[in-house]
Amino acid sequence: MLGRIDHIGVAVEDLDTALKLYADVLKMPVVHRETVTEQGVEAVLLDVGESHVELLAPLGPDTPVGKFLAKKGPGLHHVAYQVSDIEATLAALKAAGTRLIDETPRIGIRNSRVAFVHPASTGGVLTEIVQPAEDH
Amino acid sequence: MLGRIDHIGVAVEDLDTALKLYADVLKMPVVHRETVTEQGVEAVLLDVGESHVELLAPLGPDTPVGKFLAKKGPGLHHVAYQVSDIEATLAALKAAGTRLIDETPRIGIRNSRVAFVHPASTGGVLTEIVQPAEDH
Repeated sequence: MLGRIDHIGVAVEDLDTALKLYADVLKMPVVHRETVTEQGVEAVLLDVGESHVELLAPLGPDTPVGKFLAKKGPGLHHVAYQVSDIEATLAALKAAGTRLIDETPRIGIRNSRVAFVHPASTGGVLTEIVQPAEDH
Repeated sequence: MLGRIDHIGVAVEDLDTALKLYADVLKMPVVHRETVTEQGVEAVLLDVGESHVELLAPLGPDTPVGKFLAKKGPGLHHVAYQVSDIEATLAALKAAGTRLIDETPRIGIRNSRVAFVHPASTGGVLTEIVQPAEDH
């Protein structure tokens, strides 16, 4: 059902400070930078193997990532798994009794289609499923 | 420097409950189960793409994962990146001023060699580097 870890999402206070670590020290190539207004973040994607690290800086304190930072501080925010058929995956998750934040996919970074699963259903792990744009 | 996401570590209260989600619902194949006494955990590895999900149940409340659960509840615990030369990676991280928890590698799951970087150096993300057993 899940093809790979698409990315891990990391909440950061400041993108340029975070890039000093991920790009300059850890040598991950930056492949994309985008303001995703709907999710209230400016995001940077860096390559690592077949996956990405997604750095997430909030556009304001009242955004989901802004609230996360205020409550928990910077750190691991979510994990996203790549799928080839997001509707089928959502249907399977729903049939298994999983609580979905998004019953239908919405548009995410790089024109992907994404949906979040509620962490109450996934042992406290905010879990995202992603179907990349080239697959739909 | 970093070849891939080796695994994401997920702190869980109970392995069998977590396996109902990851193995039964998300359909990740279980590939390994081990008690890692030195780290105070019973761990299960599941395959997803070139990476793993590592479920971590504490052996007791005074272990690092036991304390994490008491403080933060279940959820994302750490991310581990795979390297082919852990000594060279540790030397590069040290040269860049990164604070290391492990100055020299220690033995991890499946006889890998592992070292942890302090989250104070990595934007709140507990970060592990792993050299698999077959590479050393």
